[in-house]
Amino acid sequence: MNAVDFDDRLSWFHERALDGKTNEAVRFAVDLLASGHSQARIICDVFATSQRQVGDEWQRNEISVADEHVATGVTESALYAVSSDQQGEPTLGSVVVACAEGDWHSMAGHMFSEQLRSVGLAVTFLGASTPSDDVARFIQRRRPDALIVTCSLPIFFSGVVSIANVAHALGIPVLVGGRAFEGAPERAHRLGSDAVAGDLADVLSRLAHWRESPPAVDNEPIVLDPRVGELESQSTILAQKAFARLTTLYSPISQFTPRQKDRTLEDLRYIVDFTAAAEYVGDSTIFTEFLAWLDEVLRSRKVPRVALQLGLEALIPELVTADPSGGRLVQEGLEFLANLG
Amino acid sequence: MNAVDFDDRLSWFHERALDGKTNEAVRFAVDLLASGHSQARIICDVFATSQRQVGDEWQRNEISVADEHVATGVTESALYAVSSDQQGEPTLGSVVVACAEGDWHSMAGHMFSEQLRSVGLAVTFLGASTPSDDVARFIQRRRPDALIVTCSLPIFFSGVVSIANVAHALGIPVLVGGRAFEGAPERAHRLGSDAVAGDLADVLSRLAHWRESPPAVDNEPIVLDPRVGELESQSTILAQKAFARLTTLYSPISQFTPRQKDRTLEDLRYIVDFTAAAEYVGDSTIFTEFLAWLDEVLRSRKVPRVALQLGLEALIPELVTADPSGGRLVQEGLEFLANLG
Repeated sequence: MNAVDFDDRLSWFHERALDGKTNEAVRFAVDLLASGHSQARIICDVFATSQRQVGDEWQRNEISVADEHVATGVTESALYAVSSDQQGEPTLGSVVVACAEGDWHSMAGHMFSEQLRSVGLAVTFLGASTPSDDVARFIQRRRPDALIVTCSLPIFFSGVVSIANVAHALGIPVLVGGRAFEGAPERAHRLGSDAVAGDLADVLSRLAHWRESPPAVDNEPIVLDPRVGELESQSTILAQKAFARLTTLYSPISQFTPRQKDRTLEDLRYIVDFTAAAEYVGDSTIFTEFLAWLDEVLRSRKVPRVALQLGLEALIPELVTADPSGGRLVQEGLEFLANLG
Repeated sequence: MNAVDFDDRLSWFHERALDGKTNEAVRFAVDLLASGHSQARIICDVFATSQRQVGDEWQRNEISVADEHVATGVTESALYAVSSDQQGEPTLGSVVVACAEGDWHSMAGHMFSEQLRSVGLAVTFLGASTPSDDVARFIQRRRPDALIVTCSLPIFFSGVVSIANVAHALGIPVLVGGRAFEGAPERAHRLGSDAVAGDLADVLSRLAHWRESPPAVDNEPIVLDPRVGELESQSTILAQKAFARLTTLYSPISQFTPRQKDRTLEDLRYIVDFTAAAEYVGDSTIFTEFLAWLDEVLRSRKVPRVALQLGLEALIPELVTADPSGGRLVQEGLEFLANLG
């Protein structure tokens, strides 16, 4: 597809997806396949791009979660419609694809699994969050050439490590990928990835390389900073304490509906979780990128930036006790927000 | 299908699903369709029954969560393969199907949506947990004849009510169904359902009836007992306090792995959540059925019943303060366990 042609097709598909036009979207995808476009390209250029736009539109409050779910449902239908039924024997080996433990966003892993299958790999996709013990039992029986772990958000980093560790204990190499690692492959290495699963080509060349010379898998488990783990496990309670303080700092909260209060609590919990994620891999941009995202989400819903700033301030006293370096990160986040356009 | 024939077919499909044999399972389902079985029957008798068996097998520790996810993935593929592409205009009206807010188990709602579509309804399935505000925006635009809310477990009852309330505020009648209401339709009425969505025939006859004589929708919101709501919102904290007490009551806990400790905490939280669910609808069998289920889950994983009993005892002091009638329910639960075979 050339660029112009592609943009037209993409927006045609994207509109049908948002509008719940499953039949039209499925026929469109099947026609693209019939006219010679590869499954892998359709998945990557149409489905994944449309899904990403859906996320961006939600962020800007242009569509609701319900619209998002409708679009995802249509895209899933189209994905199944173009999925390989792989009549021949897979020739490129076998992989198991799992989401990070705790990560319920399975669509990206599903799309990537179908891309891999379409080029001749035997793929088992384990779907959303699977406990690492169960992944262990499964791959011990199946013995795939590699385990691929997908992770949509940095808050599931500890769930990447728990799965990578069980694979390594069995001598199975691990490829980690997903949106949480885009532009920052070193994060994946810090979590135990033997190589980064950036895109289809990356994974294929890595697997080809490993077929030639099998990797030496280090079965020593990755141990994440237990102090940060403790912070993560306390995020609900820290958020509740910060919420109580925030009610004294930001008076409009007293007018919030129960739902708005729940969302505020949830945001405070995410702030703690993203702080922990940034600390796990020593990368503060995880935290500032999250703040920029949350700031746009809130402002497009008419919540002023000062509310977010006061939320961070309400958290600091909790964090300086629980995790001083997390407290410093949040302090840096305040400076970041003050300078944000 | 007659019964013998059906059992054979079902177990053939079920084995393929557990074994990740997507192609075989899809071909089997498409062949069933070609040989004259209706989509609705295939979905209900093969897919839904197989999914239920998967749950039972997990409960008895015969399969892992990974196996469960593989089987669900195969079943989803087969479901898409037999899904109606509804070339003609839907003639029986339109519905929106949503999962209860908080309920991430979307498979049953997806299967039910496809059953409804296959007989001539225009169906929009909103997928897993959608916030009620977003459901409201969506159905206000679409104006379906009815909203169907599916709920897999009683712990999502408050998420049924929040969605039913927004539909009623817009004058849209609500049908509630799902595993949480099986054999107990009165629970659905207590949560605001205008009629119970037991199975396909139920829903079709109710919608036909409503087409003849549109229901008077009461737009007064259902208000759940706020004391129980408070209990529910505190379940994580109460579970943590009970866990601390349990470590003194049940010494083997000191030997638990971090993962086993996490699971114990999670079980304690579920106990609180199921207590709240039973209280919301005044039906203590919700709590005792959950205990019987959890007892089998734990014992098949070599956790003795006494651990569960001590878990309940550790919770009682928390509950008698937070919610005395919840405390009495847990006390009854202890008697129930003592008499369980």
